[in-house]
Amino acid sequence: MHAFRSRLGGLAYGGDYNPEQWDRATWREDVRLMREAGVNLVSLGIFAWVAIEPEPGEYEFGWLDEVMDLLHEGGVSVNLATPTAVPPAWLTQLHPEVFPIMEDGRPLGLGSRQHFDHASPVYREYAANIVTRLAERYSFHPALAMWHVNNEYGPTSYSEAAADGFRRWLRRRYGDLDTLNAAWTTSFWGQVYTDWNQIEVANVMGVWMNPARRLDFRRFTSDSLLECYLAERDILRSFRDDIPVMTNLMSFYPHADYWRWAPEQDVAALDVYPDPGDSESHISTAFHYDMFRSLKNGQPWMVMEQAASAVNWRDVNLAKEPGRMRLGSLQALAHGSDSVMFFQWRAARGGVERFHSAMVPHSGPDSRTFREIADLGHELSLLAPVAGTTMRCADVAILFDWNGRWGLEDTGWLPRDDFDYGEIVLRHHRPLWKHHHTIDVVSPRSDLAPYKVLIIPNAYLIDDEGVAAVTEFARAGGTVVMSFFSGVVDECDRVRPDGYPGAFRHLIGAKIDEYWPARPGERFAVRFADGRTATASWWREDIHLETGTALARYADGPLAGRAAIVANAYGSGRVVYFSTLLDDAAFHAVLLDQIRMAGVTDPFPGLPAHVECTVREGGRNEYLFLLNHSPDVDVAVPLDRSGVDLLTGAAATEEITLAPLGAAVIQTTRVPDSAV
Amino acid sequence: MHAFRSRLGGLAYGGDYNPEQWDRATWREDVRLMREAGVNLVSLGIFAWVAIEPEPGEYEFGWLDEVMDLLHEGGVSVNLATPTAVPPAWLTQLHPEVFPIMEDGRPLGLGSRQHFDHASPVYREYAANIVTRLAERYSFHPALAMWHVNNEYGPTSYSEAAADGFRRWLRRRYGDLDTLNAAWTTSFWGQVYTDWNQIEVANVMGVWMNPARRLDFRRFTSDSLLECYLAERDILRSFRDDIPVMTNLMSFYPHADYWRWAPEQDVAALDVYPDPGDSESHISTAFHYDMFRSLKNGQPWMVMEQAASAVNWRDVNLAKEPGRMRLGSLQALAHGSDSVMFFQWRAARGGVERFHSAMVPHSGPDSRTFREIADLGHELSLLAPVAGTTMRCADVAILFDWNGRWGLEDTGWLPRDDFDYGEIVLRHHRPLWKHHHTIDVVSPRSDLAPYKVLIIPNAYLIDDEGVAAVTEFARAGGTVVMSFFSGVVDECDRVRPDGYPGAFRHLIGAKIDEYWPARPGERFAVRFADGRTATASWWREDIHLETGTALARYADGPLAGRAAIVANAYGSGRVVYFSTLLDDAAFHAVLLDQIRMAGVTDPFPGLPAHVECTVREGGRNEYLFLLNHSPDVDVAVPLDRSGVDLLTGAAATEEITLAPLGAAVIQTTRVPDSAV
Amino acid sequence: MHAFRSRLGGLAYGGDYNPEQWDRATWREDVRLMREAGVNLVSLGIFAWVAIEPEPGEYEFGWLDEVMDLLHEGGVSVNLATPTAVPPAWLTQLHPEVFPIMEDGRPLGLGSRQHFDHASPVYREYAANIVTRLAERYSFHPALAMWHVNNEYGPTSYSEAAADGFRRWLRRRYGDLDTLNAAWTTSFWGQVYTDWNQIEVANVMGVWMNPARRLDFRRFTSDSLLECYLAERDILRSFRDDIPVMTNLMSFYPHADYWRWAPEQDVAALDVYPDPGDSESHISTAFHYDMFRSLKNGQPWMVMEQAASAVNWRDVNLAKEPGRMRLGSLQALAHGSDSVMFFQWRAARGGVERFHSAMVPHSGPDSRTFREIADLGHELSLLAPVAGTTMRCADVAILFDWNGRWGLEDTGWLPRDDFDYGEIVLRHHRPLWKHHHTIDVVSPRSDLAPYKVLIIPNAYLIDDEGVAAVTEFARAGGTVVMSFFSGVVDECDRVRPDGYPGAFRHLIGAKIDEYWPARPGERFAVRFADGRTATASWWREDIHLETGTALARYADGPLAGRAAIVANAYGSGRVVYFSTLLDDAAFHAVLLDQIRMAGVTDPFPGLPAHVECTVREGGRNEYLFLLNHSPDVDVAVPLDRSGVDLLTGAAATEEITLAPLGAAVIQTTRVPDSAV
Repeated sequence: MHAFRSRLGGLAYGGDYNPEQWDRATWREDVRLMREAGVNLVSLGIFAWVAIEPEPGEYEFGWLDEVMDLLHEGGVSVNLATPTAVPPAWLTQLHPEVFPIMEDGRPLGLGSRQHFDHASPVYREYAANIVTRLAERYSFHPALAMWHVNNEYGPTSYSEAAADGFRRWLRRRYGDLDTLNAAWTTSFWGQVYTDWNQIEVANVMGVWMNPARRLDFRRFTSDSLLECYLAERDILRSFRDDIPVMTNLMSFYPHADYWRWAPEQDVAALDVYPDPGDSESHISTAFHYDMFRSLKNGQPWMVMEQAASAVNWRDVNLAKEPGRMRLGSLQALAHGSDSVMFFQWRAARGGVERFHSAMVPHSGPDSRTFREIADLGHELSLLAPVAGTTMRCADVAILFDWNGRWGLEDTGWLPRDDFDYGEIVLRHHRPLWKHHHTIDVVSPRSDLAPYKVLIIPNAYLIDDEGVAAVTEFARAGGTVVMSFFSGVVDECDRVRPDGYPGAFRHLIGAKIDEYWPARPGERFAVRFADGRTATASWWREDIHLETGTALARYADGPLAGRAAIVANAYGSGRVVYFSTLLDDAAFHAVLLDQIRMAGVTDPFPGLPAHVECTVREGGRNEYLFLLNHSPDVDVAVPLDRSGVDLLTGAAATEEITLAPLGAAVIQTTRVPDSAV
Repeated sequence: MHAFRSRLGGLAYGGDYNPEQWDRATWREDVRLMREAGVNLVSLGIFAWVAIEPEPGEYEFGWLDEVMDLLHEGGVSVNLATPTAVPPAWLTQLHPEVFPIMEDGRPLGLGSRQHFDHASPVYREYAANIVTRLAERYSFHPALAMWHVNNEYGPTSYSEAAADGFRRWLRRRYGDLDTLNAAWTTSFWGQVYTDWNQIEVANVMGVWMNPARRLDFRRFTSDSLLECYLAERDILRSFRDDIPVMTNLMSFYPHADYWRWAPEQDVAALDVYPDPGDSESHISTAFHYDMFRSLKNGQPWMVMEQAASAVNWRDVNLAKEPGRMRLGSLQALAHGSDSVMFFQWRAARGGVERFHSAMVPHSGPDSRTFREIADLGHELSLLAPVAGTTMRCADVAILFDWNGRWGLEDTGWLPRDDFDYGEIVLRHHRPLWKHHHTIDVVSPRSDLAPYKVLIIPNAYLIDDEGVAAVTEFARAGGTVVMSFFSGVVDECDRVRPDGYPGAFRHLIGAKIDEYWPARPGERFAVRFADGRTATASWWREDIHLETGTALARYADGPLAGRAAIVANAYGSGRVVYFSTLLDDAAFHAVLLDQIRMAGVTDPFPGLPAHVECTVREGGRNEYLFLLNHSPDVDVAVPLDRSGVDLLTGAAATEEITLAPLGAAVIQTTRVPDSAV
Repeated sequence: MHAFRSRLGGLAYGGDYNPEQWDRATWREDVRLMREAGVNLVSLGIFAWVAIEPEPGEYEFGWLDEVMDLLHEGGVSVNLATPTAVPPAWLTQLHPEVFPIMEDGRPLGLGSRQHFDHASPVYREYAANIVTRLAERYSFHPALAMWHVNNEYGPTSYSEAAADGFRRWLRRRYGDLDTLNAAWTTSFWGQVYTDWNQIEVANVMGVWMNPARRLDFRRFTSDSLLECYLAERDILRSFRDDIPVMTNLMSFYPHADYWRWAPEQDVAALDVYPDPGDSESHISTAFHYDMFRSLKNGQPWMVMEQAASAVNWRDVNLAKEPGRMRLGSLQALAHGSDSVMFFQWRAARGGVERFHSAMVPHSGPDSRTFREIADLGHELSLLAPVAGTTMRCADVAILFDWNGRWGLEDTGWLPRDDFDYGEIVLRHHRPLWKHHHTIDVVSPRSDLAPYKVLIIPNAYLIDDEGVAAVTEFARAGGTVVMSFFSGVVDECDRVRPDGYPGAFRHLIGAKIDEYWPARPGERFAVRFADGRTATASWWREDIHLETGTALARYADGPLAGRAAIVANAYGSGRVVYFSTLLDDAAFHAVLLDQIRMAGVTDPFPGLPAHVECTVREGGRNEYLFLLNHSPDVDVAVPLDRSGVDLLTGAAATEEITLAPLGAAVIQTTRVPDSAV
């Protein structure tokens, strides 16, 4: 990435570029407009397999050579894509087994995209070939700055090839059938396997299916997709190893465990599409940004795709109001991104995504969108010093775990069936964001030592290593904040023995006798030790305190008098456990109390919640990002240091005023304690 | 049709007749009751294939001969059906490929109806044979008055035969693959076809499918169904060409482009089932009636099916209250129909439609329904002079276009996904009906010259010929009223270049930078030039006026100040464009203003909205239809001429009073300007 | 059953026991806890096929021998299961045709349960073999007390084997195709079959399918499942005929006609799962209990499965509050059960039902649930005298008919499509329960002579024999209370001729001209002869009185003035017919009036509705069950006799007070008239 960063000399700016949809005259116009907009990087050829290899073994590189040269002449670097997300029609005609088999048993057909079976040896062979040809031809092209492998890996397949792959994967994981039978609890309902070939992938029963098999099929699919990525990456590296290789990921994506993927990428790259119809989407976006910074331990990451305005795949696709796209882009930088990239450069005339916005929309350069794009390009050039800088490790970490998510959402038949892992995690993040805490996102394998507080949203499924890590974190003095229905099952979805929560009974100092989900619409009261009450809903637990003490107790209903929130000292640390879903205000208050008690100070006290503040550091400088997410009010932010607002070039001292949706990026000389 | 009309000597009255469900005694009772009810036409044998050909090549015409003779003796003419909507079980047993393949890939089985694959050569061969045998035997039977081909053509198939047919159709349409690839924008997502056989029909991806392919598959299906009809029609005509041939159509039916079908029929025939639970269903029914009159340029058309009371296929099937069936029947005549026909003569004892009402219900002739049927039969005999008369060309035309509809509803991934073309069209018709305007319905291929006003409901997709026709209409002095999201794509669903609305930017005198669908439940204000405001919802557009002027502007929200309704002079004409969904009152007011400004006068000023008034003309007479759709109040209608109410035989002068759900048909001598 | 009863020496108490999920140490702990809890019967090995026969023809009985011996030593009898509900993976690997074919045409795969095709000869052969092996080995084991065949029979199959079986079943039923064609009204839509092999089972058309075929496929499936049961039962009996054989049933289960199944079982056994989230679930549970007592003519029956607390398959699975499980268990005894059994003894660690509660929950014996289980076990031992006693025949019977239900719910395309037979039946039962009437449930084949009142909830479909039985009941002096849309079609779903309701026109003394379902949300008034009015909704009928008289008339709407409730004298009896859905209060009042007029006295006048009272009788004793279903209030119940409360051992005279959710079982010496 160092060479890549030097090459760009600043932040990356650009988008997906599909010249195969346009004529030569448009190419030249494109490069002209790219220069006008300050674009310095495009992702090229993502779906261009058939354009490059129109018949098996016949290659047409001419057009691509020309585009690469044109871009290079125009000063635009290329993130060159392997086009393996879309096998050509001739390939599926020749080898129909390349089509993935959907959950209902039918093969996916032509006319869409990502119609490849990740487990198909034929697909993998043809993909390796086209990647090799591309690498042969372009590895040393002067425009080449990065390799973009495939696109949004995710297609799942229930094919015979997938079944073969699954059985091989299971053999590696379990060794023998006895172990597998134990892991899957096949003694329940008499499902014992006596031959590896009895194991199927079809999922005709929906949630009536063995939950451990569902879990493992999730894991296998993620791993098999990753094999596809690795095969391509290794080919590319075999030609030249100083060009970064990545594939674009999608944050809360269910089909791939990004904690396993990130180490294999040279940079974490995010496709992000906040809904303009959601007035708090910038808060969840902040979490996604923090996750992508965390995926590779704080290294600068990339926004690889976002929308210039509306998308085309929601029920109602709202346009982004003026200033919203700019603010969201600066927000990415504020969370450690070194790029602002879009899907797509120029709006397509036809196809499924013809109404997806673009940097150059259907209405052409004389449009609100292109003007905002060009303005942003100029601003990003002013922010060049930010490139390569990083953010300090946060004090507070939030656990996000694909295995935990699959356990909660995909195994089925839990005490209630409407857990939404993403929403649960965001509910824990929201109060922190509103108090200007930048957080890190961690997995059960992360190094937890640097953190003061570890927040564990409903961790229904957590493996032994994860349990040990959390336990050690608390023992060593950390504060753990944990939500209900955590620590219930092991990595095979087996209920941990000796009473709930088997994994964390020692940590929370209490045994849970029974889960008591609340009926729809039911609300009930909890009373705190100081007599104040709050309302709660959705879930209850019948808690029997052991070493723990009650911060609050149920005040009515069948569990009246029992502990609702438990605090427990553990080792040098402290654990707080919520057994119910408190209403927001009370939940936020208790959560923030715990964070303060853990010695984490409010980073920007007195600042309105809608102003986001973060700091990047590099060399002798700091960069204070101030973002006003209110579309209605301006806000005066007091400053405790002097610097220069890079966006305006103006000196910033004592106070700076942010317009609605306004922002400032204040460069200061580094001081030990940064505060507004 | 002339011979047919002479034969009946008045209006056609009757229904579907299925003697194969009943014994001989019932046949005689049927003919007796038909005479009692004034029935003069029945549609015979619609599902009788297996009754006529119980084994391959073995024919049993005896029962049909007998029924034809009985009807003839009873003075009832026959609209004899080809029975090809229901292949016999022996045919699908012998040739399972006759079954159509459904969208999910499974063949349709036995036990229902219309289980034929329109593209199957085997089906077509067997169908041609049975039609030939019927024509041989009955072409000169004295009872024969009309041929009824098949029934409600529509079954779609995703079979291999359909794929073959689709590829042949595409070759004819596009000639070569380059043209097809350009038409389908296959450069998007790398979907380029390099061999015709790569083209599939399976639709496993739903709306993720290439939208142009979806469009063309719609068109192909309509055309292939039409081939089936034409093949049968041509066989029938080869025996005798003075018997009218038709097939029954279903108004807003998605599977066939009736503008292409109507010219091939000798009469437009409508199956119509207004919902008694919808208090405004008579208004939408008026539109369907106007459409069927328009399909064949104003010629008298036929109601081929309606329900005597309840249907059986809604969630809740309400009975028609007393008088409702009569009024709806007279309404058909008021819009130019020459028939009142029902599904069905006698209620079936078993089968899926056992609870569909009939002229002779389960409770027999001693029933409310049969009494109303017999009364209506008597009234229709009094209305015989109306038969063969026509209506004047309307001043106002509304565009209804199957291609536009498919574009809006089936291509997918639009700025919002809940367009309902039928409801959109009806929203434009409702204010006109409430002000007693009879309208014509036109296609992009219709002759627009006779009209003063052309109303274009959301015409997202319109082809170049349509654009030229609309442009010429305005240029020549017409008034065009157009709604938002019109003129966006060409006939291949490609966004027209140079800014929205590519097809109509010159007409509306404005460029639209971006579409801004509104969030669910959002309401906003528009302000007219005179300061009045109205509320709007659902959709907005960012309009930049060029030659146009603003009739109203957005008063709040992100587009505050921009034009919301645009007026533009074009050639000798005028164009008014609504960029948002105004609330009903404001929309009606603006729409009616535009119509008045175009020189169209209120045909029946002062009449309550619930009284429908239309005029048929023929020879030296006019027939003024007055229909009171209120079930609660009677109404006194002033008359400006004298005549005779054909229903009562009473003189009608100065004023006539209509009871709730009452009607009058006043015959007058023709005068140049008809008005109440 | 006599030997069984003697063996247990009291009530049966226990649950499903799956030792194959646990190790030997747990087995010993299990037996210890069973003794502690008073368990005397377990259902063993329900899904243990693969545990017993791990490879084809290889048997491992060792573990089962050991468990049987351990249980026997511990004083626990065994209800030994045939494990045929779950074919081993080796069997489906060897013979994939054992998998049933689902309605969508796909085979059910592994990973769930009940993946057997009831019509498969291969399945039946392997099932017979394993049953034979089990019977050989355990028929004379001292622990064996009962045979439990399969589990919750129900899987439907659309396989070729099912099609073969269906055709054979149809040949037996109809003899020739003409009869079948008439029965299925195939003359409608030209569906006539000319070869048995044309008959399919695939159901691709949903409700568009011939309704009589749907009905017969329901009947065939029930009969074919019953054949599976009978084959196993007969094998078991061939070894020893003094061990009762049963299979567990599920009350309102759609897939099997339990009236045909019950005579083949030695005891009626119910799996029952009232929803703790439904505050009236104890009322519907009372109906299910009465049905299971009635299935075998009042003989003691068994609760074979219930939940100790929450289940795991609802959207939200509420725990049972303290005391609720005990009260529900005593309620079963109060309605004639001789057992209280649970699914399951010990909560599974993994698998789909890991969160289904158990007698020994995940939190172990030191838990609320196990304490309640042990307490209940103690109480049941005090109630041993109740075992084997029975209840008097009720005065009021309610008709529950699977054919009627299938007609109403599965044939499709009725005047409205939202009939819910179970809810309709329960609506008729609820007022009776609230007035302390214990009812019997009858089929059209039951002996109706003992009853004073027969309640017939919407009996849309009823066969000739049923019509004759109801007619004779009225003729002989009984009171029939019947609800709308009854007597409409014959057993082939053919509308009975001569006007609605063809089957019962003579009984109700009125002809119905037309059904008038009400529009959603519509409410209307009926006026009684005394001038009082009530509101009604959902349905109306256009009634023409013949011999009947109007108890109430429609007061508004299109049928104003027509009869709404009809009374008719018939023979020595009386018939009351509701043509609309009265609001609860009015419906309850009229229904209870009719019951009183029929000479049925209030059994416990003055008692609050939430206190349930029933009486069991045996030898010289009576057992008065008093159950307070209120969770909030206690209630003092006056007694008119003296006895002993078996639960406390205390004398009960004059009055007894029941705590919230409290109960008493008062043993008294038998007197001719029992009353509180």
